[in-house]
Amino acid sequence: LSGEFTIIEKYFAPLAADCLGALGLKDDAAILDAAQYVISKDILVEGVHFVTGDPARSVARKALRVNLSDIAAKGAKPAGYLLGCVWPESVDEEYIAEFAGGLKDDQDEFKICLMGGDTTVHRAKKAPLTISLTMFGVAGRSGMIKRSSAAIGDDVYVTGTIGDSGLGLSILARKEKGLKEFKDQLCERYQVPSPRVQIGGALCGIANSSIDISDGLIADAGHLAEESGVAIEIGVDRIPLSAGASAWASNFAGGSDSAIMKLAAFGDDYEILFTAPPSCRRAIQMAAQVTKTPVTKVGRVIRGAGVLMKNAEGATLSPECAGFDHFKR
Amino acid sequence: LSGEFTIIEKYFAPLAADCLGALGLKDDAAILDAAQYVISKDILVEGVHFVTGDPARSVARKALRVNLSDIAAKGAKPAGYLLGCVWPESVDEEYIAEFAGGLKDDQDEFKICLMGGDTTVHRAKKAPLTISLTMFGVAGRSGMIKRSSAAIGDDVYVTGTIGDSGLGLSILARKEKGLKEFKDQLCERYQVPSPRVQIGGALCGIANSSIDISDGLIADAGHLAEESGVAIEIGVDRIPLSAGASAWASNFAGGSDSAIMKLAAFGDDYEILFTAPPSCRRAIQMAAQVTKTPVTKVGRVIRGAGVLMKNAEGATLSPECAGFDHFKR
Repeated sequence: LSGEFTIIEKYFAPLAADCLGALGLKDDAAILDAAQYVISKDILVEGVHFVTGDPARSVARKALRVNLSDIAAKGAKPAGYLLGCVWPESVDEEYIAEFAGGLKDDQDEFKICLMGGDTTVHRAKKAPLTISLTMFGVAGRSGMIKRSSAAIGDDVYVTGTIGDSGLGLSILARKEKGLKEFKDQLCERYQVPSPRVQIGGALCGIANSSIDISDGLIADAGHLAEESGVAIEIGVDRIPLSAGASAWASNFAGGSDSAIMKLAAFGDDYEILFTAPPSCRRAIQMAAQVTKTPVTKVGRVIRGAGVLMKNAEGATLSPECAGFDHFKR
Repeated sequence: LSGEFTIIEKYFAPLAADCLGALGLKDDAAILDAAQYVISKDILVEGVHFVTGDPARSVARKALRVNLSDIAAKGAKPAGYLLGCVWPESVDEEYIAEFAGGLKDDQDEFKICLMGGDTTVHRAKKAPLTISLTMFGVAGRSGMIKRSSAAIGDDVYVTGTIGDSGLGLSILARKEKGLKEFKDQLCERYQVPSPRVQIGGALCGIANSSIDISDGLIADAGHLAEESGVAIEIGVDRIPLSAGASAWASNFAGGSDSAIMKLAAFGDDYEILFTAPPSCRRAIQMAAQVTKTPVTKVGRVIRGAGVLMKNAEGATLSPECAGFDHFKR
């Protein structure tokens, strides 16, 4: 393995080449120039946020993408990032090269650059790879879309489909043995999520409030409801499902509603849940078309508190699980 | 242990109370308003950057202070930070409360606030506490002081004293058995460094180039020389030492020059090494007085490359060690 400064020079400095404020990664700090920035910081830990043995390339891309998802949900345009890596004691240079390759692929795809960071190696045996990523986005003209500004009467929308990533994780963890036909697609949703960067920027000035779905649809709707001081009603039968998730739900022993409730509690979707007044329906349809993003109206914002999950007959279902909590044992 | 959101609400949200852009830690991202910012990101890992068993309060303060040191060396005024924590599986709430208490102490001392972040828990047994901190400083009127702008003929200065932190680590690791009289003082330099925030801001517009000393005086002078395309000559007998380091050096078997070379290679000093033209000597003296910061002229910038360590007779000494490299095994 090369030395620290060689590793930085060889693998990471090229990723910062187009970013003026990164100073070629040759200083202690980066420069961020005047604008309103939206900043997100998510940490990924081996064994918690990705599976030991996941390819280096997809781990790198997931680290970028979970943060890109936060920036997108806030209506901002991603610009650049700081990267902190703590490598396992046993890391080899090939792994680092693959990791940097994954970053490069996504830098090109999302037009972002590396601005700076820190890289170090664990001394404890078998300590897990840990990636800390801080992403900067330029705020849209109407500023950041917050969690706290949903209004009574708003429609509630989600992008894409819900629950695929959770099924992917179950397959990777060998808990789910079926779904052979959809295996690759579902696992990819877990390993390399697709942040909704295009429509995220377009929602600025349209959506009243927004959150990305990382803890689970029900849990994240709950966060948004709480910060806005409202209740959110969601039609379980309206939640958009992929073909794989539909197949899984229709075979679920407890029935389709229970299955969808589980999908809505999994998390790691990195879709956007947002609210907007009914007067914006046409604008949202346009934004969805222009950015080629599936958008589904799943419910509405009402007076009250919490999340109400309704079945097709209008009965309220009780969530078995309120989403992922890193501190729960 | 409470749940993730309770932990954030109870221990971390109060630290963000005075920061408008943090939105009370109730959103996915923070807002950074228009200004030129200097950003630094340093990760601290248990067993690498601090000793297992170090008090939670001092670990928290060290995480802030190593980043404050980067911001200070760049001539910027610290403003706020993003915090990423990966707690060991066995963490208890008392530890987190102590950690947050340490952050609070230093927020008050340095007038900074928490802007956002992420908190998660290891699943692997005995995986080390890992803290990733991103610090934002408002750049001085002349912009960031870089590593790359030292000029031939500049004087070379360091703040404070060199090598104390390395001796402190040797004492904590029970490699150094002497120095009883200076034990607390030296260990504190390792556990809770004192970033030179006051003089850092004052150097903007005076210093031509600057770096904080984290890898070791010789190594960091080398980084500065390399990025500036110059050589740096340092008088070994001019390097400022504390009473404890002086006592250690005078008892060193290899002689005083060798001892000081070791002190200059230890690292973790979090002092500032900077260069300025001779015409600025009076301004630097004033800045040192006003900010009550010891500043010592240790050498000069000359044509060439690398770092030349000279003894009192003008002979060049060869560094045994080029400073700390996280990738060296």
